[in-house]
Amino acid sequence: MISKDEQKVLAARTAVDVLVKKGRIFSGMKIGLGTGSTAMPAVKRIAELIADGTLSGIKAVATSFQTTLACEEFGIPVYTMNDKAIGGTLDLAIDGADEIGKGNSLIKGGGAALLREKIVAYNSKAFVVVADESKAVENHGTKFPLPVEIIAEARVPVVQKLEKLGAKCVLREGVKKAGPVITDNGNMIIDCTWENPVDAAKLEDTINDITGVVECGFFTKIRPTAFIAHSDGSVEERS
Amino acid sequence: MISKDEQKVLAARTAVDVLVKKGRIFSGMKIGLGTGSTAMPAVKRIAELIADGTLSGIKAVATSFQTTLACEEFGIPVYTMNDKAIGGTLDLAIDGADEIGKGNSLIKGGGAALLREKIVAYNSKAFVVVADESKAVENHGTKFPLPVEIIAEARVPVVQKLEKLGAKCVLREGVKKAGPVITDNGNMIIDCTWENPVDAAKLEDTINDITGVVECGFFTKIRPTAFIAHSDGSVEERS
Repeated sequence: MISKDEQKVLAARTAVDVLVKKGRIFSGMKIGLGTGSTAMPAVKRIAELIADGTLSGIKAVATSFQTTLACEEFGIPVYTMNDKAIGGTLDLAIDGADEIGKGNSLIKGGGAALLREKIVAYNSKAFVVVADESKAVENHGTKFPLPVEIIAEARVPVVQKLEKLGAKCVLREGVKKAGPVITDNGNMIIDCTWENPVDAAKLEDTINDITGVVECGFFTKIRPTAFIAHSDGSVEERS
Repeated sequence: MISKDEQKVLAARTAVDVLVKKGRIFSGMKIGLGTGSTAMPAVKRIAELIADGTLSGIKAVATSFQTTLACEEFGIPVYTMNDKAIGGTLDLAIDGADEIGKGNSLIKGGGAALLREKIVAYNSKAFVVVADESKAVENHGTKFPLPVEIIAEARVPVVQKLEKLGAKCVLREGVKKAGPVITDNGNMIIDCTWENPVDAAKLEDTINDITGVVECGFFTKIRPTAFIAHSDGSVEERS
């Protein structure tokens, strides 16, 4: 039996090694790097493979300040989606997830980084998620709250519209910071739960249509390959 | 014996009631409202006095999203320092503090709201802080870390310069948010500690002179009246 933290590291490192072996992570590629406790060991593994000469000329786009800081620390060169060297499209993005549903629909944003994570994932030719087994779920909506990144000035009307969609809404409060969590983009997060499971693919568009919503944490439009580590030490590759 | 949380509420409510009695909080005034667990009960007490008709026509400037949300909740009208109704100067500001030193020099910013708190305090004709007794200290620098709000792009050079001033620097990490805490103004916080007590009045200017520093959490240029609640249930008014 291995712990949740060990599963995170195992999933991340296994995914990178398998992707390198399959030629899906390769020298000179443009790669999107995720955020959070499972994405970080993947970033670290890529840094090791750069350091030992297995990979070279990698161009990374980071999904958060956390990831940018890790790249600075590890010496991985960071670009933006807008740099000419990236040209708006990545070869592959690798990231964690808060929930992986059937068909690999996702909820992301527990670390409040969903906006840049989605910009990166939705503009990548391939998308890979890494997770411990606790993230695999039957359906979305009732357990892990859906994060919705909003413009501060629109909070009350946005919450009213989310409530009309059946959501129970909570403004995410900071810790080590008074008042609301502020995202890397200067916005706030509303965490939404429902009494019954919801249709994530449908709600993703409906929620994003609300004026004042920047982006929501449902990821249903690009279905990733998932590497899910189990407590028995195995890693499942699920498409 | 009363708890720390009880002391916070006692200090806040006593201060408001004393200031109303002395005519320093009055109808039609322009008041700056602080942030954090001790400032919030002061805001609530002012709201009660508005609701019962003791105060009317109060114009508030909030020091954070947290305080703005509280004012929205309590129905206190919020202005900015720039509104014509405020005209850049407040009659009085009331706020909490993380450390109150001799002569009522302060460290603030534990809730990451120091920037707007200082804009408000330094542009008020009078400044009042409310605190539990644990906040009263002999000197600054070695216990509660000094928060320094910085521009993200300048992190490494700013930290190098703070280290030259003898500080041990830690980038404040978020909780319920991956990566660094982001302030209400979109910046990051470096928490600084020293081996020995420091000259806060001198360091306030020296640190603010560093390019990339937005503001630091030493408040030495306006000396507040402090209302400090003790565990025996007494409240000390200290000028």
